[in-house]
Amino acid sequence: MDLREVIKSYPDFPKPNILFRDVNPILQDAKHFESAISQIEDLLYDMDYDVIIAPESRGFIFAAPIAIRQGKGLVLARKKGKLPGDVASKQYFLEYGMDSIEIQKDGIKLGQKVVIIDDLLATGGTAKVICDIVDGLGGKVVASVFLIELAELNGRELLKDCEVKAIITY
Amino acid sequence: MDLREVIKSYPDFPKPNILFRDVNPILQDAKHFESAISQIEDLLYDMDYDVIIAPESRGFIFAAPIAIRQGKGLVLARKKGKLPGDVASKQYFLEYGMDSIEIQKDGIKLGQKVVIIDDLLATGGTAKVICDIVDGLGGKVVASVFLIELAELNGRELLKDCEVKAIITY
Repeated sequence: MDLREVIKSYPDFPKPNILFRDVNPILQDAKHFESAISQIEDLLYDMDYDVIIAPESRGFIFAAPIAIRQGKGLVLARKKGKLPGDVASKQYFLEYGMDSIEIQKDGIKLGQKVVIIDDLLATGGTAKVICDIVDGLGGKVVASVFLIELAELNGRELLKDCEVKAIITY
Repeated sequence: MDLREVIKSYPDFPKPNILFRDVNPILQDAKHFESAISQIEDLLYDMDYDVIIAPESRGFIFAAPIAIRQGKGLVLARKKGKLPGDVASKQYFLEYGMDSIEIQKDGIKLGQKVVIIDDLLATGGTAKVICDIVDGLGGKVVASVFLIELAELNGRELLKDCEVKAIITY
């Protein structure tokens, strides 16, 4: 099934000059949602990995069902201040100012192979920050897998130390 | 499996006088995550419903795998400004100021029966706002199902128009 026909595009959302690709029509139809999850699973076929990381917050929607079906643990990558306990944190630059991504330190064990599953690859900034945090915890991101890739933003270049896969490319 | 033994509690997070119940240790262990999803599914056994609503953002983690396994559509309830297109919105009061919850109008069709799946029932404020939005769209929330219920906050009272179920009560 070509999910591209299901995704809706909204010009100037959430701000001017952004063409927003809305995955909600996929989620709202059980057949389409199942198709999306199955197609992402196909990208992981034969891949050797231990843990899935889900970036806040749309990443949760795709990473959680795959973690359940593949029998893998799920680790959340969240914005600053959302995760309790001992967290590994890394700052990154936004258009104006800075933000941080955090992961609970006990989520990644030494030597673990990690797959990031998210809805959208844009500049790759978030995934790159997650790769760096995982490195610092002694793990290794072996692949970043996305439902949608915005090719013109060239996120793959930033993520060249891991495999990058996507179902739909714009 | 008693997931209560897996949940970690953090006093004064994210602010003083809040005892935060952290579900991340459940997610990080594939056996525990599967157990949580199965136990929530058990609460839905024999229930007649059409659509699952997932409140932002930890609700996504539990609602999405259940939507996939039960073959139901998933509709997101998000904070103001996150969903594109034509949204139904309702304001609610916070400790200081106000916020809004939004649902895409085409997510709920006339007469549909809806189940809300979220990680935590506290005051019930978020679920109540979602019930009101669904009412306004011509649907009906038949049940709100939670992994954790904080009984002393009496969220059930606010949600007395639907079934309220939880796996773990504190």
